[in-house]
Amino acid sequence: MLVVMEHRATQEQIDRVVEAIERRGCKARPIPGGERTAIGVLHNKGPVDAAHYLGLPGVKEVIPVTRPYKLVSREFQPAPTIVRVGDQRIGEGSLTVIAGPCAVESEEQAMAIARQVKDAGAGLFRGGAFKPRTSPYSFQGLGEEGLRILAKVRERTGLPVVTEVMDEENFSLVEQYADMVQIGTRNMQNFSLLRRAGQSKKPVMLKRGMSATIDEWLMAAEYIMEGGNTQVVLCERGVRTFVRHSRNTLDLSAVPYVCKESHLPIIVDPSHAAGRRGLVIPLARAAVAAEAHGIMVEVHHEPDHALSDGAQSLYPEQFATLMAQMRSIFETFEKHPMPDNRYA
Amino acid sequence: MLVVMEHRATQEQIDRVVEAIERRGCKARPIPGGERTAIGVLHNKGPVDAAHYLGLPGVKEVIPVTRPYKLVSREFQPAPTIVRVGDQRIGEGSLTVIAGPCAVESEEQAMAIARQVKDAGAGLFRGGAFKPRTSPYSFQGLGEEGLRILAKVRERTGLPVVTEVMDEENFSLVEQYADMVQIGTRNMQNFSLLRRAGQSKKPVMLKRGMSATIDEWLMAAEYIMEGGNTQVVLCERGVRTFVRHSRNTLDLSAVPYVCKESHLPIIVDPSHAAGRRGLVIPLARAAVAAEAHGIMVEVHHEPDHALSDGAQSLYPEQFATLMAQMRSIFETFEKHPMPDNRYA
Amino acid sequence: MLVVMEHRATQEQIDRVVEAIERRGCKARPIPGGERTAIGVLHNKGPVDAAHYLGLPGVKEVIPVTRPYKLVSREFQPAPTIVRVGDQRIGEGSLTVIAGPCAVESEEQAMAIARQVKDAGAGLFRGGAFKPRTSPYSFQGLGEEGLRILAKVRERTGLPVVTEVMDEENFSLVEQYADMVQIGTRNMQNFSLLRRAGQSKKPVMLKRGMSATIDEWLMAAEYIMEGGNTQVVLCERGVRTFVRHSRNTLDLSAVPYVCKESHLPIIVDPSHAAGRRGLVIPLARAAVAAEAHGIMVEVHHEPDHALSDGAQSLYPEQFATLMAQMRSIFETFEKHPMPDNRYA
Amino acid sequence: MLVVMEHRATQEQIDRVVEAIERRGCKARPIPGGERTAIGVLHNKGPVDAAHYLGLPGVKEVIPVTRPYKLVSREFQPAPTIVRVGDQRIGEGSLTVIAGPCAVESEEQAMAIARQVKDAGAGLFRGGAFKPRTSPYSFQGLGEEGLRILAKVRERTGLPVVTEVMDEENFSLVEQYADMVQIGTRNMQNFSLLRRAGQSKKPVMLKRGMSATIDEWLMAAEYIMEGGNTQVVLCERGVRTFVRHSRNTLDLSAVPYVCKESHLPIIVDPSHAAGRRGLVIPLARAAVAAEAHGIMVEVHHEPDHALSDGAQSLYPEQFATLMAQMRSIFETFEKHPMPDNRYA
Repeated sequence: MLVVMEHRATQEQIDRVVEAIERRGCKARPIPGGERTAIGVLHNKGPVDAAHYLGLPGVKEVIPVTRPYKLVSREFQPAPTIVRVGDQRIGEGSLTVIAGPCAVESEEQAMAIARQVKDAGAGLFRGGAFKPRTSPYSFQGLGEEGLRILAKVRERTGLPVVTEVMDEENFSLVEQYADMVQIGTRNMQNFSLLRRAGQSKKPVMLKRGMSATIDEWLMAAEYIMEGGNTQVVLCERGVRTFVRHSRNTLDLSAVPYVCKESHLPIIVDPSHAAGRRGLVIPLARAAVAAEAHGIMVEVHHEPDHALSDGAQSLYPEQFATLMAQMRSIFETFEKHPMPDNRYA
Repeated sequence: MLVVMEHRATQEQIDRVVEAIERRGCKARPIPGGERTAIGVLHNKGPVDAAHYLGLPGVKEVIPVTRPYKLVSREFQPAPTIVRVGDQRIGEGSLTVIAGPCAVESEEQAMAIARQVKDAGAGLFRGGAFKPRTSPYSFQGLGEEGLRILAKVRERTGLPVVTEVMDEENFSLVEQYADMVQIGTRNMQNFSLLRRAGQSKKPVMLKRGMSATIDEWLMAAEYIMEGGNTQVVLCERGVRTFVRHSRNTLDLSAVPYVCKESHLPIIVDPSHAAGRRGLVIPLARAAVAAEAHGIMVEVHHEPDHALSDGAQSLYPEQFATLMAQMRSIFETFEKHPMPDNRYA
Repeated sequence: MLVVMEHRATQEQIDRVVEAIERRGCKARPIPGGERTAIGVLHNKGPVDAAHYLGLPGVKEVIPVTRPYKLVSREFQPAPTIVRVGDQRIGEGSLTVIAGPCAVESEEQAMAIARQVKDAGAGLFRGGAFKPRTSPYSFQGLGEEGLRILAKVRERTGLPVVTEVMDEENFSLVEQYADMVQIGTRNMQNFSLLRRAGQSKKPVMLKRGMSATIDEWLMAAEYIMEGGNTQVVLCERGVRTFVRHSRNTLDLSAVPYVCKESHLPIIVDPSHAAGRRGLVIPLARAAVAAEAHGIMVEVHHEPDHALSDGAQSLYPEQFATLMAQMRSIFETFEKHPMPDNRYA
Repeated sequence: MLVVMEHRATQEQIDRVVEAIERRGCKARPIPGGERTAIGVLHNKGPVDAAHYLGLPGVKEVIPVTRPYKLVSREFQPAPTIVRVGDQRIGEGSLTVIAGPCAVESEEQAMAIARQVKDAGAGLFRGGAFKPRTSPYSFQGLGEEGLRILAKVRERTGLPVVTEVMDEENFSLVEQYADMVQIGTRNMQNFSLLRRAGQSKKPVMLKRGMSATIDEWLMAAEYIMEGGNTQVVLCERGVRTFVRHSRNTLDLSAVPYVCKESHLPIIVDPSHAAGRRGLVIPLARAAVAAEAHGIMVEVHHEPDHALSDGAQSLYPEQFATLMAQMRSIFETFEKHPMPDNRYA
C-alpha cells in the first residue's frame, strides 16, 4: 500500500502516518518526490485496510498495491484448477456446456429438455428448484420436489446437475441432490452462505454479483476456499450499467482478466445478461471466442409456456446449431494458437 | 402492461399474442397505431411478467405500466407510516438521527461514543456486532459479545440501538437485543432473510442494494411487509457508479421519489456513500435538505484507532456542529413551506 | 407514446392531458384499466417529446412506444446498407479489418505498420493525425503532416485510410485525405460536427459515446443521414461502467441489437475498451463471434516506444495470428447457419 | 507514478522498466517489497502516461500518484477564484442563483420569466438560443434572434445572462451577447471548443460530462485555463448511472471534492439531473446544503406550454419559495460554522 501525502503536508504529519503504520506491525518507507511525499507500507501480512490511514491529517489518498486475495490468486497457485463434476472437467483446455430450463417446472418438462440438450452435446443439466425472485408474488420454484426431479434427470440421462441454493437452511438439502451447487448473483456477498459453501464437499459455482468488481468476486471465492472447499467455478453473468437494450451488460473482459489473476475456471452465462434469445446466441459464441472455459445457457422445449424467463430461453433447435458453432469456434484455438504472451 | 408489436407484425402474430395474454387470465386490448399495433394487458392481478410475451414472434418490446409493488405503495396506503423505536418516531414530520461507530469494539468504546452522540442530540445508537466484510481476513465483529454491549449502552443511556443481522441463523439472537434490526446492502435481495424479517416483531431498517433500482428496493420491502411486519424503514446509502472520488454515489433523488411512491419512511446513510469524513458532512446536510426523515452517521471518539471505517467516522465535535446545522436546515421547511404540488 | 395517469387522477386531469395531446396535432386515445387510466398518443409525426406531458397534474409517467429514429431504422429501410471504402465493402456478409497505430508518428512508423497489417490481411489502415487528448499537455498528433503521411500509405500500399476529425474547422482538410472519416466518442453528440458530416461525400465512421444509449447513438447517425450522407458505419468501442479492470466495458450485445434496429453496418473497436493487449485479443475474437461486420484494432511495430496507447497496441505477430483466428471464426457462420429467427 | 511489477518479475524485466523510465527523462526508484517490486517514477514534469509502461513484460499495473491537472488545482493556487459576472461574484462565500427557461422562445416569454425570477431574487438569467438536441427533428432554438432577446432582457432587468455555445463557428457571436458562456455536457471534451473558450474574454461555465470523472472534468477546465482564460465556473449536473427514476444521478459529493482539489467555483444544476420538478426542488436545496457556490435552475411561467423541458421547469411561485428556503439553508453555515478540518 502507498499512502500519498498532500503537497503541503508537514513533517509532523508524515511522522504521524509512519507511526500509525508501524503501530500496526508494518514497516513504513517514506519516498520523497518532487511534489509530495508518498509512504510505502511494507511487510504487511495480507491486505492492509486503507481506511486506517485515509483520515489522518495530511493524507491525500491511499493506494492499494497488493491484491487483497490470496488462495484464489494465480501468484499463489500458478497451475490452473480443474473442477470435476461427474465425468466433466471444467477448466483450462475444455469447453463445458451447461444447459437446461430456468426453473424445473415438472418431471415431463425437465426430462424433455434434458434429452434434447444431451443429444445436442451439453455436458451438464441446469434447472432451478429454489428460485430467487424480485417479487414475493412470482413463482418461487418447486423446492425439494424440484430437487427430486433433478435427481431423476441425472439418473436417466447421466448428466450431472447444477442447481441454486439460496440459504444456509436448505444447503444440506441442495447439496445432497446437486452435483454442483450454484450461488446466485444476489448472494455473492452473503458471507454466511459463502462460509457454509466452504464446508461443502460439492463443487460450487459462484456467480458474479450484479455490480461486483473482480476483486470483490475473487474475495467471495476466497471465503469459500478459506473454508476448505477448493472446487470453485466462477460464472460471469453480466453487470448492471446504464444500458437499457439488454437486461445486463456482459463483461467479457472478465474472462481473460480472471484467467490472469486466478487459477479458478471461469464460465459465462449469456442468458441472464441478454434477456432475449436474439442476444443470447451471439453472446454465447462471443464467450467461447473470449476463451471462457464453459457456457451456461437456458433452453426450453416450449419457451412460450415457460413459468419464468421464457423470452431468453433458446429453442432446442437453436441450441443444437449453437453447439455446433461453439465447437467450431473452440477448435480455432488449437488450429491457430496465440504466441504465449497472450495476457501481457 | 403494453406489448408493442413490430412494424411488420402480421395479424396472425397479433392474434397469437392476444391468445397468450388471455390464456393467463388477463384481457387483451389491441390498440392499432399509425406505425404499429400495441396490445394493452388489462385485469391482471398484480404485475405481469414481461418475459411471458417478450419472446413471441412479432413482439418488439414489452413495457410495464403498473408498478410491481403493492403493500408498500402510497396508492395502496396513502397515509405515511411512522415507525416507533423506543421513544423515537421515524417518518414524516420528524428528523431522526442515528449515530455511533461502524463496529462495537469494546464496552469502553461504545459507551464513550454513545454518551457523546447522546449529548449532541442523537436519537438512536448504532454499532455493528456482526460485520459483513469483503475479506474473510478482516475484523468480523464481536458477535454476541457486541450485542451485550449494545444492551448495556441502551440501559445506561436510554438510547434505542440499531444493529445489523447477517443471516437467518442469528436473527433470533439479534432481534432479542436490538430495538431495530438492520438488513445490509449486500443482503437486500437475500430473500430468505427478508422472509425471516417479515416474521419479526422488531422494526427493520432495509438498506438499498448497491445497484438496486427503487422498484427492486421496494419489492424487497414488500417481502417483509407481505410476511406481516409493517415496521420498515428504508435507508439510502449510495449506489455504485463509474465515479471514483467517493466510495459510492449518494442518490438523493431517491428521497423524494420514494416519498411519492411509498408510505414508508426513508433515511440516508452518508457515511458509506462518501468514505471520507470531509464528504460525509456536506452529504448529511444535503440529505436533510432533501427532506429525508433521518440520518444514520458514523461517529468515533478516536477515528485514527478505529478497527473499521475510521476515515469516514466523524470526530464527536464535528458531529455536534453537524447536529446544529441539520436542525437549522430542518426548521427551514416549517418557516418556508412549499406549496402542496411538491411532487408533481 | 403512452401517458400513464396516477391511480387517483381525476376525470378533469385526464381531460386536460387529452386536450394537451390534441393541441399538438396528435390523437389521444384513453385506455381505462383496472387500476389507472393510460392515454395513447396516436398519429404523431415522428417522436413526441415526453416532457410535454410529464409535468401535467395527475400524470404518473410517460412511456415512449415508437423509436425516435427514422432514416437509420430497419423498419424504414429493411435492406442492409453496404458502405464501400476503396475496394472494401463494409456490412452484412463481410468481415472488414481496420488496423494501424493509435497515432501517426512518422512516415517510417506508418509505412512499417501498414506493410505488416496489409501482409496479415487487413483491409484498411487507421492512424490518428488529430488526436483528442484528455490533457492539453499530451501529444496532440501531427496534424496535416499526419494526413499527408496517410495519403502516402494509401498510395504505396493500396489500403484505404481512416482517420479522425475533431472539429468543423478541419473537416474539409481531413475529408480531402481520408477514405473514411471517423467521428470519435467524445464528439458523438457534437451536433454541429454531425451536421457537417451529413454534407460530406466521404463515408463516416461514428463511434458510440462513452455513455450513450443505442437510441442516442442511432439518433446521432440520424443527424448525418438527415443531412444527406447515407454512408455511415457505427463503431462500438465500450461504455463507461463501474468496472475497473478494463478501461471501458465492451457492450457486445449492441451488435445484434443494432443489426435488428438498423440497416447500418456495425464494427467493433476492442482496443479502447480493453486498454491492454492481453484483453484486446479475446475481445476482438468475441466481436467477430457476435457477428460484427468488422473490427478496428491498434497495431504498432514497436509498442514500447509508441507515443500513445502503447499498452493496448498489438505486436504485428499477434495481429497476424488474430487475423487467422478471426477468419476461422467468421467461417463458422457459413458452416453452421442459425435458423432465421435469430433476432427474435 | 508507481509501476507495480508481477510477483514473478525477473531482475531483467525490472531493469527494462527502469531503463524505459529514464529514457523519458524521469528518475526511477525501485522499492522492493515482500511480495513484489514497485518502481516509483520521480522528477516527472507533469503527469506521466501510464500507457508507456503498462505493456512492458513483467508489469502488473501502473498507478498514477500525482494528479494530471495543474493550473486548476488548489495545490497550484490555494486562494479561491471568484468569478465576476456583471455585479455577481461566483465563488466561496456567495450563493449565486441562475434561473430562467430551458430555451428562449420569444421576447414575451423571456421577459415574463426574467421579471419573475428577478423579483424572487435570482442573480443571473439563463436561456438557450442554440439548443443541443438528441433529435435533429426537435426544436433547435431561435439562434441569433434568441441572443438578441437575451440582450434585451439584460438591458431591461439588469440581470447578466448565461447561454450555451455549441461550436467554434458561433463562439464569437455568442460571446458578444452573453455575460457568461456555457459549454454543455455533450461538449465537455470537445477540445477544439475548449481551446476557443480559452481565448475568450468572457467567463465560461463548464458543465460536467455525462460520464466524466472529476479528473477529466478538471482537465477540460485546464484546457480553458491553459489558453489564458482563468474565469471558469464548474457546473455539476448529474451523471449517467443505472438509475431510472431520475434522468441522471446528481453527484453532490463532487461539490466538496472539487472544493478540495480546485480553487474554481462550483455550482449545481438540479434541473437536468432530475427531469421532473418534484425532484428538482429537494435537489436544489441539497446542493446548497452541500455548500455549492450556486444553483442553476429552470423556471417557466407556463411550463405546460414550454417548447422544451417543461416537466422539469419550476412554476414561478415554487421558485420564490425555493429561494427563501435556499437562503435560509445558506445562513446555516454562518450560524454554525464547522471546525476547519472539514475536508480531512
